[in-house]
Amino acid sequence: MLRRVVNACLFLCLSVSLQAQENASKKAADYVNPLIGTQGMGHTFPGACVPFGIVQLSPDTDTIPHNVNGAYQKEAYVYCAGYQYQDPTIVGFSHTHLSGTGHSDLGDILLMPAVGEVQLNPGRATVPEEGYRSRFNHDSEKARAGYYEVMLEDYAIKAQLTATQRVGVHQYTFPKERGNGHLVIDLTHGIYNYEGKTRLAFLRVENDTLLTGYRITEGWARTNYTYFAISFSQPIQSYGFKDKQQSTYKGFWRRFNQYENFPEMAGREVVSYFHFNTTENPTLLVKVALSGVSTEGALKNLKAEAEGKTFKALTQEASAQWNKALSKLQIEGTDDDKAMLYTSFYHTLINPSVYMDVDGKYRGLDHNIHQADGFTNYTIFSLWDTYRAEHPFLNLFFPAQDRDMVKSMIAHQQQSVHHMLPVWSLMGNENWCMSGYHAVPVLADAICKENYADHGEALKAMVETSSVGYYDFLADYIKQGYVPFEKSSTSASTTLEYAYDDWCIYNTALKEGNQEVASCYRQRALNYRNLFHPTLKFIAPRYADGTFKPDFDPLQTHGEGFIEGNSWNFSFHAPHDVFGLMKAMGGEKVFIKRLNQLFEMELPKHYYEKNEDITEEGLIGGYVHGNEPSHHIPYLYAWTSQPWHTQYWVRHIVNRMYRNHIAGLGGNDDCGQMSAWYLFTVMGFYPVCPGTDQYVLGAPRFTYLKATLPNGKSLEIKAPNVSDKNCYVRSLRINGQVVNRLYVTHQEVLNGGLWEYEMSDKPATQRGRKSNDKPYSLTQN
Amino acid sequence: MLRRVVNACLFLCLSVSLQAQENASKKAADYVNPLIGTQGMGHTFPGACVPFGIVQLSPDTDTIPHNVNGAYQKEAYVYCAGYQYQDPTIVGFSHTHLSGTGHSDLGDILLMPAVGEVQLNPGRATVPEEGYRSRFNHDSEKARAGYYEVMLEDYAIKAQLTATQRVGVHQYTFPKERGNGHLVIDLTHGIYNYEGKTRLAFLRVENDTLLTGYRITEGWARTNYTYFAISFSQPIQSYGFKDKQQSTYKGFWRRFNQYENFPEMAGREVVSYFHFNTTENPTLLVKVALSGVSTEGALKNLKAEAEGKTFKALTQEASAQWNKALSKLQIEGTDDDKAMLYTSFYHTLINPSVYMDVDGKYRGLDHNIHQADGFTNYTIFSLWDTYRAEHPFLNLFFPAQDRDMVKSMIAHQQQSVHHMLPVWSLMGNENWCMSGYHAVPVLADAICKENYADHGEALKAMVETSSVGYYDFLADYIKQGYVPFEKSSTSASTTLEYAYDDWCIYNTALKEGNQEVASCYRQRALNYRNLFHPTLKFIAPRYADGTFKPDFDPLQTHGEGFIEGNSWNFSFHAPHDVFGLMKAMGGEKVFIKRLNQLFEMELPKHYYEKNEDITEEGLIGGYVHGNEPSHHIPYLYAWTSQPWHTQYWVRHIVNRMYRNHIAGLGGNDDCGQMSAWYLFTVMGFYPVCPGTDQYVLGAPRFTYLKATLPNGKSLEIKAPNVSDKNCYVRSLRINGQVVNRLYVTHQEVLNGGLWEYEMSDKPATQRGRKSNDKPYSLTQN
Repeated sequence: MLRRVVNACLFLCLSVSLQAQENASKKAADYVNPLIGTQGMGHTFPGACVPFGIVQLSPDTDTIPHNVNGAYQKEAYVYCAGYQYQDPTIVGFSHTHLSGTGHSDLGDILLMPAVGEVQLNPGRATVPEEGYRSRFNHDSEKARAGYYEVMLEDYAIKAQLTATQRVGVHQYTFPKERGNGHLVIDLTHGIYNYEGKTRLAFLRVENDTLLTGYRITEGWARTNYTYFAISFSQPIQSYGFKDKQQSTYKGFWRRFNQYENFPEMAGREVVSYFHFNTTENPTLLVKVALSGVSTEGALKNLKAEAEGKTFKALTQEASAQWNKALSKLQIEGTDDDKAMLYTSFYHTLINPSVYMDVDGKYRGLDHNIHQADGFTNYTIFSLWDTYRAEHPFLNLFFPAQDRDMVKSMIAHQQQSVHHMLPVWSLMGNENWCMSGYHAVPVLADAICKENYADHGEALKAMVETSSVGYYDFLADYIKQGYVPFEKSSTSASTTLEYAYDDWCIYNTALKEGNQEVASCYRQRALNYRNLFHPTLKFIAPRYADGTFKPDFDPLQTHGEGFIEGNSWNFSFHAPHDVFGLMKAMGGEKVFIKRLNQLFEMELPKHYYEKNEDITEEGLIGGYVHGNEPSHHIPYLYAWTSQPWHTQYWVRHIVNRMYRNHIAGLGGNDDCGQMSAWYLFTVMGFYPVCPGTDQYVLGAPRFTYLKATLPNGKSLEIKAPNVSDKNCYVRSLRINGQVVNRLYVTHQEVLNGGLWEYEMSDKPATQRGRKSNDKPYSLTQN
Repeated sequence: MLRRVVNACLFLCLSVSLQAQENASKKAADYVNPLIGTQGMGHTFPGACVPFGIVQLSPDTDTIPHNVNGAYQKEAYVYCAGYQYQDPTIVGFSHTHLSGTGHSDLGDILLMPAVGEVQLNPGRATVPEEGYRSRFNHDSEKARAGYYEVMLEDYAIKAQLTATQRVGVHQYTFPKERGNGHLVIDLTHGIYNYEGKTRLAFLRVENDTLLTGYRITEGWARTNYTYFAISFSQPIQSYGFKDKQQSTYKGFWRRFNQYENFPEMAGREVVSYFHFNTTENPTLLVKVALSGVSTEGALKNLKAEAEGKTFKALTQEASAQWNKALSKLQIEGTDDDKAMLYTSFYHTLINPSVYMDVDGKYRGLDHNIHQADGFTNYTIFSLWDTYRAEHPFLNLFFPAQDRDMVKSMIAHQQQSVHHMLPVWSLMGNENWCMSGYHAVPVLADAICKENYADHGEALKAMVETSSVGYYDFLADYIKQGYVPFEKSSTSASTTLEYAYDDWCIYNTALKEGNQEVASCYRQRALNYRNLFHPTLKFIAPRYADGTFKPDFDPLQTHGEGFIEGNSWNFSFHAPHDVFGLMKAMGGEKVFIKRLNQLFEMELPKHYYEKNEDITEEGLIGGYVHGNEPSHHIPYLYAWTSQPWHTQYWVRHIVNRMYRNHIAGLGGNDDCGQMSAWYLFTVMGFYPVCPGTDQYVLGAPRFTYLKATLPNGKSLEIKAPNVSDKNCYVRSLRINGQVVNRLYVTHQEVLNGGLWEYEMSDKPATQRGRKSNDKPYSLTQN
């Protein structure tokens, strides 16, 4: 027995030592674990992409249609990213994926290599033989930033994926002994697919190593044009297709076989196959360039980004891009810490995505082709989520990209027949998802942080957006000061969101010296107060006649005037006027008590069990970290005399909600919002109110963190004695100066230098109590 | 009684005198009767258009889907142009129509004004109240070149239409007393419509007098993009739409009413309505600009062609354009003669149509947007029909346009993944309709007539087109010298058509000094001979093993190896080698006998009664004037010793097949081919073999005809004593020189001057008998 123990010990020591050596050479990107969040609530995907790329090339393990014979399919929700870790099969590799959303779409242009008989249906996971899908095993799966690899067991084909911004790159190694292989390109495949989603598809075999084509889908992106150009490293031997839902007119095509070796394929549901001589050359390199503009654009993208490059070179480029981006942050910590940090960072850089060809052409909201004038056009703006921390994070670390995103939003507004900034921008479409007009805080944040020099157009766009009476009961809100409950089932949360967005317009106008707009919107910014129930002191839905809903349940999410949140959480939603909010709630004492209660309460199961976005995994008491409306709440203690509670809770939340594990995310990552919350929080500050230049201080997570800022400066944050126990800030010195304030400014962060924290297991109850120490509030205590 | 007779006589005299006065001021366009061919076989439409315009704005009286529950609807055929004269109702006014085709499509962007309750379905002709359609009466109908007017009886709305090349212009006069009116824009409407034909539709209310949008349909034009911009002369009061086939995902649109006064409409089957204050202002002027490129393009087209112009001014412009074009021909004759002449001329100038925005952008065959480099891009090339006489006619009278059509075809070839010239080009699509590659003769004709200076690209395009093995058994044809019957049900006619097209390539190569191509294609040009049945001496379907089909019936159209014609007609199909053909048929005697028999036989009804394209109306004996394969046959006597039969038969055909009557056309006008046959024939010559520079002489129709040629010269053709009786040419002097030849050259026509015919009631049996008098033949007698 002893011997065995010794041996085991030796082995352990050896491993540790090897790991130490390995770590020494490990770069930032090497710590990324794309599998985090691929099970459960995260809705992330494990495939290959590069920062801000429109291509996210990833295996789809299933895609449940959201509607079968008119019945909503609950399972569709978990397939927002097309992948669930527990699934036994891979359907194929598709090129576009949303990262962490709670609704789904895309999964465009699916490729699947195979050997044996050509099958043109995916088949079912339970009977993979009946289709082209294949079993796989996680043992063979390697997921890294910019790289994915798996063995397709049914075919013994090794699949390796990498990507550029606009090109998905596949390398398939076929088994020589199983005959020549083929590749299925299924233009009917999609995430959240349903009959008729693909409105039309077109594919041309330009020559024996090049395809072009496109499809137009009608999904969450109402009209989504996906053009492609596909090159092969070896010549096609023969090919064909099937139109699963033949259009009625086929006319004179009968005179020749259009289905085999006919280089033009078109129809509603086109599934094509291409044979290769893989017994002679088992390696097939496939490059799939996408464009939202045209096949001509896709060809340009292919040429500019991938032509003539080997799979290895492209993989290295992807890796280098990730390293360059992610090395902006460095920490001391465990491997799990680093995995979580870099994976979070990685997740913040997937969406938004470039939506423009290399020549600057892009499809606008008006469906016309525009030429981007001095900016890169982006799409995938999940703004209800991302205005909170994702955009402020980009604004801090990727200001050039965030500025172009602002420009993209303004271009969107100018192309919009509603003259509205995006609500949820998806592939040149507005999907109207969620409430408010939260492009406004993104613009306001970029302007107040001097990242975007507005020349009136941003303010104009904001004002026009917030004046569209027919949008989500905005006319009622403007007239009455709140959205009446009889008009909208989410009247209360919508009112709160409008009020905050309106504050952003007020503050921007103020900065620009436009007093008229400022004074109008200051009034609107206070509208949240109109919904404070006079006795309950909760935000409550109110009717047009001024009365509040009777039998109001502030714990209930559904039917009480809120969207994806209850009044307990939403009542804290006035990040621009926390002192005013406090007063409305009944004063600081009630405010603190309520905050404490929120974190500590036991929320009965029936309040969330039928919910998609509010789940047990994302709950801490009644606080919903798994969904966005609550994200700023832990920081609201800063406005009170007991700011240290923030320090406690943010550490608790990080520990609970961010784990280096497939099911490690407590909620949908929501295009990086969940991850950006983590990144700010572990740095020790958070943008509670985007549109101010302040970050509210929490507590550092790591003993050492170094941030390389876009101006070339570095910010070092040291907290040598920080731990789960020592979670409280005893003192902070910024470049030697003691700081008792509970916020820092954007400029202070950009100044870089050294922040030195002394941590403690007990709160420093006297810190940050002066009124000057408090963060911004529109009205004062 | 006497008094009455005198009065009647007086009245008659007065009418005649008034008519004489009227005629004195009548211009060419005034004689056009767009109603010719709107009943029965003509498949023409009565609405408004200008020469070569992409807009043909016309009332649709019905549109039978070609398929209901899987069953083919025979009635669909008569609605190729959307209008049948005998119908009691008008569904609405749509913007695109094919002129005289035998298959159908288009009917894009239907507008219908109405008063009373808004109805969003067309309803049925038998119960017009159940939909937006209206009864009408031909008494109120005025159809002129470029103008159409009708009273919509159910609504007491006067509708007036005119057009520019890219803009349809509507003027509606609403009845003040029936309340405010509205306009329905039905984006689901189409000719040859069926479920799912409209793949997606999009409409924006840009402001209260401007709409933009588009729809994509999947029809005969497989993927047809129709963008539009619509301006109103008075502001929209309110509006809305219905999506008849709602897409599954409507998502977050629930938060606001997208169906009323929401300026963005989209879906699969969008029918919209717009209310106007017509009690205050009863006149509504609507301008609908089309584009195949984008709404941006449609707006440019609107601005360039129609902005700021009154309905009257636009009507006058349309009229002026027609007058300018049609006055190239002048005749002495009855009003019926003039109506027939100018309507025929009118019909030759509708299709092909401009397919390009005013800025030169157009959608190519590859679905990419191209910039036309120094030419106008055209579409609607019904080439199996139009290579025969329509293109030669344009080549003669509109060489600039025909040259641009050639350039459009070469651009098509360069964009084609098949590297093929168009077979049937429709709105940036290839619909593959009919057989052969008859763009080749169009190119050859333009080149041989010095209208297109080929720099190798045309010949290259021809050779590539004729080398696509997978196209319609071309590989078999190349290998075997004919298409084997077991491969294709139309193997015989296809072989004949290939052989003629191949001669065009031969002759072009010869002209360009490319001996290699010439000698290869000379061989192919003789391939028609491979199908002459050794004993029957008819072209007959042949199997790959060399044997001919047993029990072959040369009178039968179906199942005997031909398309839209029987062997009796098709056996004459070697226009490039008539002497060779004659020999193969058994010599001149047989040849003449066969020709005579063809015109004089009685074709049993069962040979055509189930036919769409071969009908009683189009038959003279067994000769089928109602369909194209026979069109050159009457002129084949020119190669024989009895050429005068041509002179007899062409007059007979004109009398029978071309009447100034709604049912006056003996067959589908086929994008001007039927009309161009008439125009050449009444001038006294016909391009039997496009690709030579010769026209075969027939006989003049009118006592006087003057043609203004594109070089500014005039050609006057006088035949003072011509009549139905005096149908034979006794002599012809061209500019004073006696011409006994049976052909003239293109240059001779272009020289203009005076052609003087002396006609007779008896054939001049000695004219044109010398071998020098005979038209071109690849091989000689």
